[in-house]
Order: sequence, then structure tokens, then C-alpha cells
Amino acid sequence: MDRRAFGTVLAGATAGLFTPLRIQAPRQINGERLNGYLDVLKDFGATVGGGISRVAYSEADLAAREFVSGLMRGAGLEVSVDLAGNLLGTFPGTEAGLMPLIIGSHIDSVPEGGNYDGQVGSMAAVEVAQTISDLGLSLRHPLTVVIFQNEEGGKTGSRAWSGEVEPHELDIVTASGKTIRDGTQLLGGSPEQLEEAVRQPGSVAGYLELHIEQGAVLHRASIDIGVVEGIVGIKRWNVTVQGSANHAGTTPMDARQDAMIGAGEFILAANRVARTRSGRQVATVGRIAAFPGAPNVIPGRVELSLEVRDLSMESIDQVFEAIVAEANAIGPRTGTTFDFSQFYVSRAAPTDERFRDWIAASADELGLSRRSMPSGAGHDAQSVALLGPVGMIFVPSVDGISHSPREYTEAEDTVNGANVLLNALLKVDGRV
Amino acid sequence: MDRRAFGTVLAGATAGLFTPLRIQAPRQINGERLNGYLDVLKDFGATVGGGISRVAYSEADLAAREFVSGLMRGAGLEVSVDLAGNLLGTFPGTEAGLMPLIIGSHIDSVPEGGNYDGQVGSMAAVEVAQTISDLGLSLRHPLTVVIFQNEEGGKTGSRAWSGEVEPHELDIVTASGKTIRDGTQLLGGSPEQLEEAVRQPGSVAGYLELHIEQGAVLHRASIDIGVVEGIVGIKRWNVTVQGSANHAGTTPMDARQDAMIGAGEFILAANRVARTRSGRQVATVGRIAAFPGAPNVIPGRVELSLEVRDLSMESIDQVFEAIVAEANAIGPRTGTTFDFSQFYVSRAAPTDERFRDWIAASADELGLSRRSMPSGAGHDAQSVALLGPVGMIFVPSVDGISHSPREYTEAEDTVNGANVLLNALLKVDGRV
Repeated sequence: MDRRAFGTVLAGATAGLFTPLRIQAPRQINGERLNGYLDVLKDFGATVGGGISRVAYSEADLAAREFVSGLMRGAGLEVSVDLAGNLLGTFPGTEAGLMPLIIGSHIDSVPEGGNYDGQVGSMAAVEVAQTISDLGLSLRHPLTVVIFQNEEGGKTGSRAWSGEVEPHELDIVTASGKTIRDGTQLLGGSPEQLEEAVRQPGSVAGYLELHIEQGAVLHRASIDIGVVEGIVGIKRWNVTVQGSANHAGTTPMDARQDAMIGAGEFILAANRVARTRSGRQVATVGRIAAFPGAPNVIPGRVELSLEVRDLSMESIDQVFEAIVAEANAIGPRTGTTFDFSQFYVSRAAPTDERFRDWIAASADELGLSRRSMPSGAGHDAQSVALLGPVGMIFVPSVDGISHSPREYTEAEDTVNGANVLLNALLKVDGRV
Repeated sequence: MDRRAFGTVLAGATAGLFTPLRIQAPRQINGERLNGYLDVLKDFGATVGGGISRVAYSEADLAAREFVSGLMRGAGLEVSVDLAGNLLGTFPGTEAGLMPLIIGSHIDSVPEGGNYDGQVGSMAAVEVAQTISDLGLSLRHPLTVVIFQNEEGGKTGSRAWSGEVEPHELDIVTASGKTIRDGTQLLGGSPEQLEEAVRQPGSVAGYLELHIEQGAVLHRASIDIGVVEGIVGIKRWNVTVQGSANHAGTTPMDARQDAMIGAGEFILAANRVARTRSGRQVATVGRIAAFPGAPNVIPGRVELSLEVRDLSMESIDQVFEAIVAEANAIGPRTGTTFDFSQFYVSRAAPTDERFRDWIAASADELGLSRRSMPSGAGHDAQSVALLGPVGMIFVPSVDGISHSPREYTEAEDTVNGANVLLNALLKVDGRV
């Protein structure tokens, strides 16, 4: 007896002990059909390397949206494009006056991207709608399947919902060569009416997004499902290490104020702080430059970036304070001074605790192993979290590779994720 | 009784115990005149910041050479410009068949440079010739005062003597906006006949150069004179630290192969090796770049420069091997690999031991404190060392600042250095 079958039997055998929703055997999507959808989707913007370049507003993006529209119609969804250029497919609900439940993701890619990022969640949402249709299920809430536009180029579609798109962003030229304004128009949106696309807090009964992990945590641990605790917050600083530029030949080792040495100690200290504190915070120095930057001059100044991510903004600030304390010790020791200038902040978006429980319960009922984990990457769910409760489901990325033609998620994991999405959606519909 | 007067008296009082050359009271140049020369020289290419921009081949360079030619003529030197564009002033010697003794330096500057680098040694050489003339002294060897051309832009004049100027260098556009070819022509040289400017090993009886230290060793220790042991050799490598680029949000701290961490450890290790080995080697990482170089991507590759300098090429290689051994330990620890590619080598140029002794003896006789030390910077003496024995005399640079308008050497130190140059020259003339 395999784990899944055992789970089903157990759910049935112990029916009397649970609430009615728990005793139902988990529903199953059609895995072959889902992977078939993904297989066709691959052709839109396919590159010779086996990946895709389906950047937002490209011909491939437009064609792929047409393909998905057809799938939506086939599932019985009523298809529309909203003012923000998002592709929507909607079922009515059985109870009047309820806000919609929303499931979905995005189908645009980075240049030379892979076949799973956004696409697994999008096709799974369509497949979930098709399954609901096939099984003759009806939901209390209206259900919307959403394909958010231009996720990779700035989460334009979901941020338009939460009113976060700044007017100047419309002039940004995207990877397609088109501005966000022209691209949004091309998709059927109305960039001049973007304010009317804004949705209010409380207008979403719940949002569920399935996504590939884009990290290697699940793959390395052979875990089926990630129950996402939230999307991490991010702060970034420009760090300036000031020493004293000097002749690399005439300045003895003990007479130097070498900004590169200050920077070297700082890089290791930031790493050590993130590694040794409890928690799952990450700290990264991704960019560095020395000035004047010649092999024969002791650097007088080094500039580098520091990024800290964590589920809690308070923890980010604590990690930063610990790193600053390290810098304050490094300075006097190396004859350097440190200056920090914050230049970016992205608020953490926690998922709803009930949603996490229902995702976990769905995985359990399906006999799937699971782990709670943060999402280190940003997702459309971040913006939707400002409008209502959200949940996210992760499936493994092989070796954690993403934004690359080598991005890969096993067909079985895609099916697992879609099944969890379906069953969690049914629980949400019954409870919120 | 001050130190100098005491030294003079001592030299006189103990005359009978020493060889004839030692019992002579040290000769003295005219310090006021020398500092007057330097004061006038400051006006050629003066900048508002108090420094000079007298780059080779500029109007200021040409005008300053005219000024120096006049001083040479005033001292009785026969003035000429050689095929390499160097300005020469020559006294005949009293003994036939002897190779020339040469003293001098350069008067060109870096852009926004100072008033002492090259200029102290050049004006002191002219003053030494004037003093020899004034005192009615005659040397056994012919004496040449040389102002080498384009020291700051590649030591063109002195390297032409040693045959080190590559044909392609003539096409290099210098800070003046002129190529080395056109500039050399402008100075009165003949760039198409540069091969005829080459001098043979053994063609120089001796070369002495006075220079500011361009470091802070003498100034910090309040030492009057540096007896230069040699000009350090230099090797430079491009170092590539290879890790694995990854998402800064989705990759936990313990799953990273962060090239920046490998680089940070390497920077500190190279510094530690140079600091803790016996000897006066220096190691510098002056340039660094991370790839892809974004705040939100763990660097997959970091490229940096490593420079090692020492008086001994063997020691440079040993220091490098020790640093490579550190890298070999850092690699496995951080999930990175290291690659080293040497891209520059400058051979060490030891000074002549006898010349060092005569410089030291001259300083002692003048009552000046002294210290043996390497020259961490390159000088024209390096190339001349391929043609005959050389000696170099350093005087203090206040705070070690050079290549800056804030470069400064006390007038008294300039006089001290010129006096040592004169007396050392007389000893060399009597002994080689």
C-alpha cells in the first residue's frame, strides 16, 4: 500500500472523528491533462536551449494568453481581461454577496527562462477549474483564475490591483522593447484607467498560488510540498567602506588604511551573522567595487551592497543591527569607517495561518510529505495579500535552478501541487 | 653644537685615522639656491590646488625643460637632447676612457600631481653640478645630469636607454593627448631612431638618483635619509574566484557557493601572509568585481587583482605560493575554486652595495640619520641598473603623500638629500 492510498483509506476509516470536510477523500485533478497543458505552453517562445523567452508583451506572450483563454473557456470559465491587463476566467458562486476566491500565477518569463516558473501555478489553476467543472462541484464563492501580467518585469498586474504601480512605471521599457503602457494596452488593458483597476482590502475572500520553489530546499530534502509561511521582506543598503588610498609599493603593511581589508572583514561578518543567528534570514553581498580600482593602489574606498531577507521585518532590522555592530568593531581594527544607506525595502507578506493549515491538511490527506518554509523570492501573492488572506504552495525545483532553461520540476510534483491546490481551495471555500 | 657641526668637527679631528677620502669635510651644496630652483619650477603647470599638472609633452613640460636647460648652461654643463628625448647636461672628466657618471631624475608629473616627485632629484642634480663648478672641483669621470622624459607615463626616457621600449608603445596616447611618438619628437628626440638611443651594459660607470620617498617610513620615524637597497620587483595576477550564482532569496545560507565569501577570505588571507612573514614584502588587492553583480544575486564569480612586491623575486614567488596555499584551503571550505593568471612582472633592481655604503658614509659625515629601505615605487634607476651600478637616496615625504597636490618634503630635507648626493658622487668618482 503506497502512502497516498493509505492516506485515503485512513481518511475514510476514521471519518466519524472529524468534521464533515475532513472525512471526504481528497479530490484529484487530471495529472496527464495538466502536464499536457504545460507541454503545449512550452512552445510559445521556445528557445533553442530548451527554455523560453516569453517576456511580457512579446508575440509569444500574446499567443500564450490566447492559448490559455481557450483552456479557460473549455473549462467553462467566463473569460475577460481587466483594466490592468490581467487575464481572468470566472465561475459564479452559489452564495450571493461573497467576495471571490482567486487562484493563479503568471505565464510571462524572464529572457532565456525556463518552463516552470509561473507556468506550473497557472496551468494548475486552469486544471483545478476544469476538474471542478468535470466533477460538477460548485463553490460558495465566485472563483477567478487569474494570469497576472508582467510578473517578471515588475509584477505589474498584481501590483495594479493593490494600487502599487507608480505612474512613471508605465514609461519603463521592458525586455520586449515595449513600454509597460503600450504593453498593457496590447494585452487588452487600459493603462490610462489603472486607478480603476485597484481593488480594496477585503475584496478578496482568499488567494491561493502554486509555484515552483526556485530554491533547493524541498529537492534536497526529498519533500513533496512546501507550505509557504510568507514571502520574505527585503531591505538593501549601499555600504561605503572608507579608508585611505595610498601607493601599493611605498606603504608598508602596518601603515595601511586599506578599505579592501575593511570590506573583506565586513563580507565575512555579514555572512557569519546570518549563518549563526537562529532563524532562516539570509544576507548577501552581491555587488562590490573598489576605488580608485587599480592593482597598484591601496583602495581608499570600497562600495558594496548588503541585502537582508526574512519573514519578519523586525528580524531584518535586528540582523542589520548585528552587522552594523560588527562593522563598528572592524572599523577601528582596520583604520576604516563604514556608512550605510538603505535604498530598497519590500515589506514581508505573511500567509494566512488558516490557509497554511488547510494546505498542510490537504497534503496530509494526499499522503504527501510537507515542510513549512518561507518564500525567499517575490510573487504576485505579495500584492494580493494586501487585499485578503493568501496561501502559497511550493513544489520542488530540481537543484533549485530557476530563471534558466535548466529550470525543472518533475511531472509528478506538478500533479501533487495541483492536487493540494484543489483540495486547499475546497477547504477555503467551505470555511471563509 | 648641532649634529651636523659635530659630524664635521669629528671628521676633521680624527683625520689621521682614515683614508684620504674619509678625512675630507663633507662638501655642501647651496640650499637656498636649490630651494629657489624648486620654487621657480613650481610655476610650470601650476594648478589652483597648489600642485602641478606638468604631464610629459605638455606646454608646461616643454617650458620647464627650457628653464632647466638654462640652469644647466649656467652651471657650465654642455646641454643636449638625446635620441630618446632625454635632456642631458655634461661635464667632461679628467681621465680619458672612463664611462660617465650620471645623476638626475625627471620633471614631468602625473595629472594633478605635486611639487617634489622627480623634481627634488632633478634640481638637486643641477645644484650638485653648479656646486662642483663653483668649488672648482673636477671629476675623473664625465658627469651627465639627466632629466628623463615621460617617467610618469611609462619611464620612456630611461627605458629607451635599456632598450625596453616596445615599438607599439610609441602609439600610446599619453595624458597630454599626444602619442609618445609625437611627444618624443616634440622634445627634440627621434622616435624613429629609438634603437640607436639604446646604451649597452657597462656603458654607465654609475648612476645616483635622489628622490622623495613617496611613503611615510622616514617621516614617521623622523629619519633624514633613506639608503635605498633596491627597487622592488612586482608581480601581478588576475584572480578568479568561481562559485555558483544563485537567487539571494531562495538559497539558504548553508546551501551557497558564494564567490564573494571566497573572495573575502582570500583578501584577508593575502593580507595576513604579507603581514606575518618576516621581510618587508607587500601584497595588495586593489581591484575587484562581482558577477553578475546585482544586490539580489549570490555572486557566481569574483575577479580581483593581486599584487606582490619585494626586493627579491624569489621572495615574491614564495609569498605567492603561500597565498595560493591559503586559497587552496579556502576553496573547499567555501565551495569555490581559485584561478590565478599572472599579467605583469617588473624585475627587482638591487642597488650596488658599494654605492649604498658610500651613501651611508656621506649621510654619517653630514651628521644625518639614515635607514636602509627598499623602494616600493618604480624609478628611472631601475632601467639604468641594467647598464651599470646604481644608488638611490630617499628623503622624507610628509605623511607619505605623493601624486597629489598635498605631496610635501621639507626644504631642509631637500638640502640634506642634495648634500648626500654630492658627497656620494664624489666618493663614487674616486672609487669606480
